[in-house]
Amino acid sequence: MNAVNDLPSTFDASRKSWIESANDPLGDFPIQNLPFGIFSDRDNDTRRVGVAIGDQIVDLAALQAAGLLSVPAPNVFARDALNDFIALGRDVWRSVRIQLSRLLACDTATLRDDAALRATVLVRAADARLHLPVQIPGYTDFYSSKEHATNVGSMFRDPKNALLPNWSEMPIGYNGRASSVVVSGTPVRRPNGQLKLPDQERPVFGACRKLDIELETGFIVGAGNALGEPIACEDAEAHIFGMVLLNDWSARDIQQWEYVPLGPFNAKTFATTISPWVVTLDALEPFRIAQPVQEPQPLAYLRHRGEHAFDIHLEVTLRAPHARQASTIARTNFKHMYWTMAQQLAHHTVAGCNTRVGDLMGSGTISGPTEDSYGSLLELTWNGKKPLELKEGGTRTFIEDGDELSLVGWCQGDGYRVGFGACTGEILPALA
Amino acid sequence: MNAVNDLPSTFDASRKSWIESANDPLGDFPIQNLPFGIFSDRDNDTRRVGVAIGDQIVDLAALQAAGLLSVPAPNVFARDALNDFIALGRDVWRSVRIQLSRLLACDTATLRDDAALRATVLVRAADARLHLPVQIPGYTDFYSSKEHATNVGSMFRDPKNALLPNWSEMPIGYNGRASSVVVSGTPVRRPNGQLKLPDQERPVFGACRKLDIELETGFIVGAGNALGEPIACEDAEAHIFGMVLLNDWSARDIQQWEYVPLGPFNAKTFATTISPWVVTLDALEPFRIAQPVQEPQPLAYLRHRGEHAFDIHLEVTLRAPHARQASTIARTNFKHMYWTMAQQLAHHTVAGCNTRVGDLMGSGTISGPTEDSYGSLLELTWNGKKPLELKEGGTRTFIEDGDELSLVGWCQGDGYRVGFGACTGEILPALA
Repeated sequence: MNAVNDLPSTFDASRKSWIESANDPLGDFPIQNLPFGIFSDRDNDTRRVGVAIGDQIVDLAALQAAGLLSVPAPNVFARDALNDFIALGRDVWRSVRIQLSRLLACDTATLRDDAALRATVLVRAADARLHLPVQIPGYTDFYSSKEHATNVGSMFRDPKNALLPNWSEMPIGYNGRASSVVVSGTPVRRPNGQLKLPDQERPVFGACRKLDIELETGFIVGAGNALGEPIACEDAEAHIFGMVLLNDWSARDIQQWEYVPLGPFNAKTFATTISPWVVTLDALEPFRIAQPVQEPQPLAYLRHRGEHAFDIHLEVTLRAPHARQASTIARTNFKHMYWTMAQQLAHHTVAGCNTRVGDLMGSGTISGPTEDSYGSLLELTWNGKKPLELKEGGTRTFIEDGDELSLVGWCQGDGYRVGFGACTGEILPALA
Repeated sequence: MNAVNDLPSTFDASRKSWIESANDPLGDFPIQNLPFGIFSDRDNDTRRVGVAIGDQIVDLAALQAAGLLSVPAPNVFARDALNDFIALGRDVWRSVRIQLSRLLACDTATLRDDAALRATVLVRAADARLHLPVQIPGYTDFYSSKEHATNVGSMFRDPKNALLPNWSEMPIGYNGRASSVVVSGTPVRRPNGQLKLPDQERPVFGACRKLDIELETGFIVGAGNALGEPIACEDAEAHIFGMVLLNDWSARDIQQWEYVPLGPFNAKTFATTISPWVVTLDALEPFRIAQPVQEPQPLAYLRHRGEHAFDIHLEVTLRAPHARQASTIARTNFKHMYWTMAQQLAHHTVAGCNTRVGDLMGSGTISGPTEDSYGSLLELTWNGKKPLELKEGGTRTFIEDGDELSLVGWCQGDGYRVGFGACTGEILPALA
């Protein structure tokens, strides 16, 4: 195992790869990133673990089989989900990161100068199909953007008391539906459900008329906790493997009618899309910054010293059917989030709830302070009152059939970006 | 495979077993029941599938290995969960039921007269340890008792408009936490959390002071559905493998502070207990009765012809620390439920949500029409205002440390009962 002392070298902004595409300053996958995912390709439809680098994917199953990757578990990358690898623990994630960073660096000849070996362990991303990166035992969604909670409270409750009293005391969260989490690129069918129209006494059944996105990130639990044994806030980040982009598709009309008193259900369970590459917390380390000041000071179990926010630029694009170009409809940043991931995990477990490797925890909609930084159409159009203008003409209040929505995000380094790739879904018409 | 035409013979009230304890008219596990579970025992700590019969467990792994059980999958009972067996489909569940009913019937000599074989395939229940019967990919909890919803609405909202308008239109449900579902007998630690005391502006952190049960049943999904392909109400029962008792432990004080607007979270996720034996829907068939009249008539997607309720008598007992006897604190019946399991499953999937084999769906608290038929201490003591008297002295408003709570339930046949066994948990003190 490599010394964890070598970890800082993997962040070195000047490190370049012999894979030239990885050195594109606007690319998502430089040598400083090395995110993990599950892929298959045209020549080999077996799913296995890969790492994105430039326009290539490193096949870790092949790399381990070739004896070029030291990991204390045989064939742990020849799997259809990252869970078994993640379960090996943080020292192993870090060791693999360090080994890959060395192997892919300009001055390492092992792969660079061996065309036959390269052909065995590298797959062009364009030839690959990406799959759900983890088997997700549990999915939880939080509600941790103050701006989002304030906007929603203003619209549906009381603008003067938009934030409920519990919001400032805890990272409010709820259980999501893990079965319907899908990977970027999976088409999403517009849901049917009960709609309560203002002019009718009883609900009608029909296709959602207010289909929306929620721009979120999600983190993947890397080390769980036993039932009855909470994770302390100071320890929580060590339990996190990495992050993805997450689109918490939402049927606003279904939600508004069903959500009292037990929370959203069918309005959310029809699909949740995540990006295919899990960017490790280690790769995000250089982009750590201070979280917003929390006032009132949280209760003791929610306190942590130091900086626990991350500077991740986020954008949402909408491509209308037949449009050549997508319109950017929102730009925001993960750093605006009031509650940190560590606080979310500490709160989730404080009553005794156990978590498991692969659990997905959504951030909640990420809205910034300005009107163009909101993370949902609900907020961007103020519940349909202010339609958005699209680049090639036309407007949107909510999502129409055939629209393709994408989330993208990256951390801006010095001459490079640590990016997430896209989190995309196209809307299919509702079932008749 | 046996003809499904033989299924009715397995319900025959006059059928007796050569296992004498199975013929006790007050026993839970007569030959008409044959529930499935996972067990290990003193001589063999490998978990495998068993069927309860009287005071014995039939080891299905051993029975299949001995060539006495015809199933189209080798070693499917040598597993630590029922999922692989369940995934074989309803025809196989029924075939196994028919084969077991014959093997265990008085007039079948195969096992009855072969002591060596009996020693191989029968384990005394007293020597066995029971485990979680299914690996649960997803847990959903409904809220389908009109009496319970009315009671809660009266206490916390408005007695005059206790039932929210959406309640009569759909089986309200929410996503639960699958990771913390435990099997009967698992001790449950009192949760810590945020409590909002009436005389203080900010919440305090501490041990739950209003710990409660919720008397529920749960059903196990036997055949899932693909994302975007709803299950029709008329077809829904064919997707259900069987039922268990379910205690949805609830921290009322944590719940009251946290649940707005996204529903209960830490108040519920610390533990949910289920009974170890899954009683198949086939075993419950003779106890099918008409559901309550639904007014207004549900929307078309929630309509089904025929009878879809089941007559299951339910009781809750509380045993105080050091008490010799438990006090029965509630008696009710599953037949009071307003929304049927079929309607719950149709609603769950109508927007496109997929379900998977082993998914657990809780009924919601089962409260009857009378004050002694309520399914929670919240209702039985009317939020602590009317303490319950215990049999050996003392009173209870909510659960105290060391209390053991049990749910039991059975269907009353002619000279026999189809029972569920107990769903029990003892409360440990909160972490300091």
